[in-house]
Amino acid sequence: MARYDRAITVFSPDGHLFQVEYALEAVRKGNAAVGVRGSDTIVLGVEKKSTPKLQDSRTVRKIVSLDTHIALACAGLKADARVLINRARIECQSHRLTVEDPASVEYITRYIAGLQQKYTQSGGVRPFGLSTLIVGFDPYTAVPALYQTDPSGTFSAWKANATGRNSNSMREFLEKNYKETSGRDTIKLAIRALLEVVESGGKNIEIAVMTRDEGLKQLEEAEIDEFVAEIEAEKAAAEAAKKAPPRET
Amino acid sequence: MARYDRAITVFSPDGHLFQVEYALEAVRKGNAAVGVRGSDTIVLGVEKKSTPKLQDSRTVRKIVSLDTHIALACAGLKADARVLINRARIECQSHRLTVEDPASVEYITRYIAGLQQKYTQSGGVRPFGLSTLIVGFDPYTAVPALYQTDPSGTFSAWKANATGRNSNSMREFLEKNYKETSGRDTIKLAIRALLEVVESGGKNIEIAVMTRDEGLKQLEEAEIDEFVAEIEAEKAAAEAAKKAPPRET
Amino acid sequence: MARYDRAITVFSPDGHLFQVEYALEAVRKGNAAVGVRGSDTIVLGVEKKSTPKLQDSRTVRKIVSLDTHIALACAGLKADARVLINRARIECQSHRLTVEDPASVEYITRYIAGLQQKYTQSGGVRPFGLSTLIVGFDPYTAVPALYQTDPSGTFSAWKANATGRNSNSMREFLEKNYKETSGRDTIKLAIRALLEVVESGGKNIEIAVMTRDEGLKQLEEAEIDEFVAEIEAEKAAAEAAKKAPPRET
Amino acid sequence: MARYDRAITVFSPDGHLFQVEYALEAVRKGNAAVGVRGSDTIVLGVEKKSTPKLQDSRTVRKIVSLDTHIALACAGLKADARVLINRARIECQSHRLTVEDPASVEYITRYIAGLQQKYTQSGGVRPFGLSTLIVGFDPYTAVPALYQTDPSGTFSAWKANATGRNSNSMREFLEKNYKETSGRDTIKLAIRALLEVVESGGKNIEIAVMTRDEGLKQLEEAEIDEFVAEIEAEKAAAEAAKKAPPRET
Amino acid sequence: MARYDRAITVFSPDGHLFQVEYALEAVRKGNAAVGVRGSDTIVLGVEKKSTPKLQDSRTVRKIVSLDTHIALACAGLKADARVLINRARIECQSHRLTVEDPASVEYITRYIAGLQQKYTQSGGVRPFGLSTLIVGFDPYTAVPALYQTDPSGTFSAWKANATGRNSNSMREFLEKNYKETSGRDTIKLAIRALLEVVESGGKNIEIAVMTRDEGLKQLEEAEIDEFVAEIEAEKAAAEAAKKAPPRET
Amino acid sequence: MARYDRAITVFSPDGHLFQVEYALEAVRKGNAAVGVRGSDTIVLGVEKKSTPKLQDSRTVRKIVSLDTHIALACAGLKADARVLINRARIECQSHRLTVEDPASVEYITRYIAGLQQKYTQSGGVRPFGLSTLIVGFDPYTAVPALYQTDPSGTFSAWKANATGRNSNSMREFLEKNYKETSGRDTIKLAIRALLEVVESGGKNIEIAVMTRDEGLKQLEEAEIDEFVAEIEAEKAAAEAAKKAPPRET
Amino acid sequence: MARYDRAITVFSPDGHLFQVEYALEAVRKGNAAVGVRGSDTIVLGVEKKSTPKLQDSRTVRKIVSLDTHIALACAGLKADARVLINRARIECQSHRLTVEDPASVEYITRYIAGLQQKYTQSGGVRPFGLSTLIVGFDPYTAVPALYQTDPSGTFSAWKANATGRNSNSMREFLEKNYKETSGRDTIKLAIRALLEVVESGGKNIEIAVMTRDEGLKQLEEAEIDEFVAEIEAEKAAAEAAKKAPPRET
Repeated sequence: MARYDRAITVFSPDGHLFQVEYALEAVRKGNAAVGVRGSDTIVLGVEKKSTPKLQDSRTVRKIVSLDTHIALACAGLKADARVLINRARIECQSHRLTVEDPASVEYITRYIAGLQQKYTQSGGVRPFGLSTLIVGFDPYTAVPALYQTDPSGTFSAWKANATGRNSNSMREFLEKNYKETSGRDTIKLAIRALLEVVESGGKNIEIAVMTRDEGLKQLEEAEIDEFVAEIEAEKAAAEAAKKAPPRET
Repeated sequence: MARYDRAITVFSPDGHLFQVEYALEAVRKGNAAVGVRGSDTIVLGVEKKSTPKLQDSRTVRKIVSLDTHIALACAGLKADARVLINRARIECQSHRLTVEDPASVEYITRYIAGLQQKYTQSGGVRPFGLSTLIVGFDPYTAVPALYQTDPSGTFSAWKANATGRNSNSMREFLEKNYKETSGRDTIKLAIRALLEVVESGGKNIEIAVMTRDEGLKQLEEAEIDEFVAEIEAEKAAAEAAKKAPPRET
Repeated sequence: MARYDRAITVFSPDGHLFQVEYALEAVRKGNAAVGVRGSDTIVLGVEKKSTPKLQDSRTVRKIVSLDTHIALACAGLKADARVLINRARIECQSHRLTVEDPASVEYITRYIAGLQQKYTQSGGVRPFGLSTLIVGFDPYTAVPALYQTDPSGTFSAWKANATGRNSNSMREFLEKNYKETSGRDTIKLAIRALLEVVESGGKNIEIAVMTRDEGLKQLEEAEIDEFVAEIEAEKAAAEAAKKAPPRET
Repeated sequence: MARYDRAITVFSPDGHLFQVEYALEAVRKGNAAVGVRGSDTIVLGVEKKSTPKLQDSRTVRKIVSLDTHIALACAGLKADARVLINRARIECQSHRLTVEDPASVEYITRYIAGLQQKYTQSGGVRPFGLSTLIVGFDPYTAVPALYQTDPSGTFSAWKANATGRNSNSMREFLEKNYKETSGRDTIKLAIRALLEVVESGGKNIEIAVMTRDEGLKQLEEAEIDEFVAEIEAEKAAAEAAKKAPPRET
Repeated sequence: MARYDRAITVFSPDGHLFQVEYALEAVRKGNAAVGVRGSDTIVLGVEKKSTPKLQDSRTVRKIVSLDTHIALACAGLKADARVLINRARIECQSHRLTVEDPASVEYITRYIAGLQQKYTQSGGVRPFGLSTLIVGFDPYTAVPALYQTDPSGTFSAWKANATGRNSNSMREFLEKNYKETSGRDTIKLAIRALLEVVESGGKNIEIAVMTRDEGLKQLEEAEIDEFVAEIEAEKAAAEAAKKAPPRET
Repeated sequence: MARYDRAITVFSPDGHLFQVEYALEAVRKGNAAVGVRGSDTIVLGVEKKSTPKLQDSRTVRKIVSLDTHIALACAGLKADARVLINRARIECQSHRLTVEDPASVEYITRYIAGLQQKYTQSGGVRPFGLSTLIVGFDPYTAVPALYQTDPSGTFSAWKANATGRNSNSMREFLEKNYKETSGRDTIKLAIRALLEVVESGGKNIEIAVMTRDEGLKQLEEAEIDEFVAEIEAEKAAAEAAKKAPPRET
Repeated sequence: MARYDRAITVFSPDGHLFQVEYALEAVRKGNAAVGVRGSDTIVLGVEKKSTPKLQDSRTVRKIVSLDTHIALACAGLKADARVLINRARIECQSHRLTVEDPASVEYITRYIAGLQQKYTQSGGVRPFGLSTLIVGFDPYTAVPALYQTDPSGTFSAWKANATGRNSNSMREFLEKNYKETSGRDTIKLAIRALLEVVESGGKNIEIAVMTRDEGLKQLEEAEIDEFVAEIEAEKAAAEAAKKAPPRET
């Protein structure tokens, strides 16, 4: 198999692009990330690698704004992420300058996925080791959107999705529990999904909430802890309820 | 054999271009796609991979417009598809600007196939992992057309054809059942071909219908379901008719 | 031997260019093609791969015009052929524009063979997997001409020649039966040569006839069938004649 | 494993970029380096390879200024370091010229990490064999900052961190002993961390202190010796205290 | 040995350029060619591969004019020959335009050999598989000249020389029989040399004669046959004379 | 290990740049070179390979001026040296032209080491097989300086240092015997260091002396012989003194 | 060892540039060449490969003028030699045009050696398979000079030197017999050196003599024969003298 790992991403006899699949492996080793689209709120959450004690948590933010109405979370190689983020931000500004209107979420998603594809077809470069979750409100219709891109350059729209380490467990959880919600409920769903795979609760997760009017807001650790407590209380109540047969509805 | 898979697509001793054949393998692993040319209607249908529950089906559309009178469906790598589609759309616009007339379906087919060929002969790139079905009405004669291109850059015109996963079964079905039809009958033939290889019926297929006057129209899921129900009813009737000897014509 | 198949076409120790020979192998796997030069008529014929039932035969034409007085048939990779044909057509137009006279058949042959040679000597590209038969009338002297080019970039002039699958059998047939003929007889000789290697007769062959005054004319299937019938009748008559000793001359 | 070490940095089947990991190995073989952020003082310290007797110690300075308010220490290939340092210094000047304001510490950190990432994704170059510690005061808010970058192009902010030879031991020491300090205490913490892994004390370490008002100041050997003596005295006192039970607090 | 056959022509441990030697092998497999310099006549002769019956012999001419006073014959890859011939012809015209005088035979020989050398030292190309014999009269002194070039880019001047298949036998014959002759005798010597290695006499050889006043003239087959007959008659007479002891001188 | 020796200098799994280490091997095979910094005099000395009898010793000078106040000696590939020397000289002139002041010794050292580093990180070139000793007086402060650079592009300042063949023995000698001296004593120390590893004394060494006022002066062979004689006399005296116990101081 | 012979000239683990050493091997297989510097005469001599009987000896001249006062002889690949000679001649002319003075012998030697070095350090080319002997009189001081360059790009000045086949024997002879001579004696020494390794005397050597006033003059074969006769007579006399004890001085 090693034979196909040449300077350029080529096809294997059974039609795979190995370098792309190896890049996906880098994503699968990356931090868990989750996105949930509510009716008036979109939530991005990522697992924080147990930050070394002395690290300044500010810099490891994995959820960033691309424009006032678009945000991005990612899983994979952090250094690769910065390249994509920088180029996407410049494209956002350039769109505002040339078209005199903000870019739509889909436009920027296509732009990012397009860059990722290009690095799988031309020689002299390797694919990006990165999957992204892109969220935002359409600047014209204010419709919320959540997109996912991967190292092959494919993208797709989602109500809720997860990527990175253990993304399958999170996706299964979301499929079982997703309802279109709004406000605090949307946030709670995202946190619950992350807690499926992240140990030691709130202190290892990072949550950012985007709303129509206020744009992206990173939750404070205290706020996250509050949500985690609430979730655990509900869970305990549910467990209790399960044991004691419900009396009345 | 692995020896021939170098950075450039070269010939093997028996005259094959392996990278092209491996790219075809990627197509064969892609979604099934079908095109049927009627007298006043052209229908494109593709298999939708059982969309994950939370995915927003809008983004996975595999049938797209290139111009008001030309549409394309494809099988293979989705990210590669976007590259070809973007370039074809720009060519359509550029044709309108320079020649002051819309491009013909064959012109755009040649353009797309030409791009695909170029990626099989020059170094530093790999072939596109993509087969396309291109349909449209001639802007001057209004004659309907259906073309197919593949990773080698070859193209050909068809009355009806299929590509992607299990394309052989669909093609055999089409060969047995094709009659030049129009309107709803053309749509029904395309759906019946897809149902040959797609399980669980209407919810896993995507159908777009192009007519002379209205251009491309994607069918709603409900509309597709209606066709599927109709097809199944007819089939059941036929089965019944087969068991009970026909009384009168 | 595989060692010599690098990104660039290099010599093997015994002075061969392997990539060129492998490209010839692709030609040998291609459709049979034949060209016959008559005194006032030049005929090109190619084997049609048993066209799938639903394919629109128009697009698979393997005999094309390069200019009003020059036509080309080829054997090998169809997608490669389009590249050569496009460039030759542009050269024809460009010749008319700059020299204000149509290009001669030899001029265009040299141009095509020159392109083919270039792809055997420079790095970063592979040879064309293509042999061509080029025919036409000299625009000044009206002398008919038939040339052949191959992947090495060599060309030569012929009275009649064949390429592609089973070209040896056809060439032997032509050597035994060639006489300078004109009109229908020239057409008949080309068809007879093709029938040596193409099964199921007229429906799998494509014939185009070039005359001084009318340029290139593709024969209708009915016309071909007529010729085939005539040929078979003559053959039967000859067989019969062979059995029954001839009475009188 | 050697198979993946080609001219371009490619992914291994399990998603690693080997050239980047080998470059990290060069860092791990480099001199130890430490950074400690105090409230009004930031300290960088590096191990000096036992300078050959006749070497002029001035030139081996591994702690350098990038601008009046930003300094950098590094571990790894010295020659690679100069390239990064030169480019960062030019960027600092260029920032002052174009924006008419000094660059922030984060801006320059991003710039350096961006260069490092670029050398891991494009062909024809190898990654930098270098980790850096970047410190400085924000030119606007005067907030102290300490960043670390590595060969992959990743960067992160720290209260205190170490890199190079035996960085793990130093980091563990810092985690156990870090308190936000100021002035001499900050310097002492940095020296104590280095002494964990550097033998023969003060003469093999290099210390530079950055303060808000005075910028970067390299400590004289005598000054370092004074600190080392003080540290050893405290240590001896502590040991003694440990043996003799404390009388009163 | 195969190890040295890389994309660029490199030295082997014993100082050989293998690609050049393999190209020479292609020459040794090529048609025999001979050149004889007389006092007022220079003759080039080449072996014609037994032309297939239907080939138009005009196109396979291997002796061509470069300018009115310079001609070239070659052995090796025909398609490579055309490249060199075209470039030499353009250089001849360009020389006339810029210097306002025709190029000398040596000038063009240097030009051709220089091109051949260039393809042995730079990467991305292979050497020309070609040896040439270049003849002509100096445009100023009218002195006749005969040069030979080979794939390494070496050239040298000769009274008579041979290249291609069996060139050693021809060269030995020429060394034994060369005398400076003129007119018909020069032609006869060239034909006799060719007949040493070409079977079935005149019909497989091509002869061109260059004279001061008339430039290059290709001999008709009949003319060649006449020479061959004459040669055979002389040979027979000589044989007879050898058997019967000479009577008188 | 051979696997890492590709067209580009890449890291080995344990963090080494092999091509750089092999280039160092070329240095270790080169002539011995030594540099000694005195208070008013800087001396460069190199071993002369036993000059063939007929060689004109002038051309093999391995100690050259870069500017009136800067000189360079080197060990390694002589042809590589010329490239670096030429570029350094041009940089010196260019510095004078653009800055209107001579370059400092450190500036030129950085320039040379920077060139050497560049050839270790980019593809398509190999490292320089060269170590240099650069000496000079600062054009402003007149402080003497001695730098050393190596194939990795590292540089450092020294009181005295050696490179090339047996540089370790010379460096050990210098470490044992170095004192800051001036004038003739500095020259004597350099010669003594060289004599440690160069056999047959003065005739195989080349010495150049740089002083503040007179710039670089190459010593005549006679002058060197005089120094060698003096050194040997002192040595003999010392030996004698060692045997006979000293009477009085 | 074969592993190091890649497209670019790289170092082997023991610090060698193999491609350069293989190129030297090509030189060692080349013709013998010798240069002798007299006080008023400089002589270049080369071995002529036993010229095939019919070759025109004029073209194989291996001693050429670069300018009126500079000449060059070389050993190695003849086609490579032409490239160097052409570029050197252009540099000579260009020097005259831009500096308005002829180039010095050393200037041109540096230029040629610089070109040779460049081909050993950059990718995509191979070294020149060539050693040169360059002679001339300084255009200002009229001092005679003799330089030698080799494939590594090294050059050096000599009183007398040899290169090519058996250069060691010739160099030993020269070392034993060289005295600074003038006129005929210088020529005789060069011829005697060549006769050490060239069999069958004068007819296989080529001699060119450069004097201050007359520039380069190629000796006629008759002149060479005369020298050879004289040398043999002297040798015979010396032998005779050795046998018979000398009577008187």
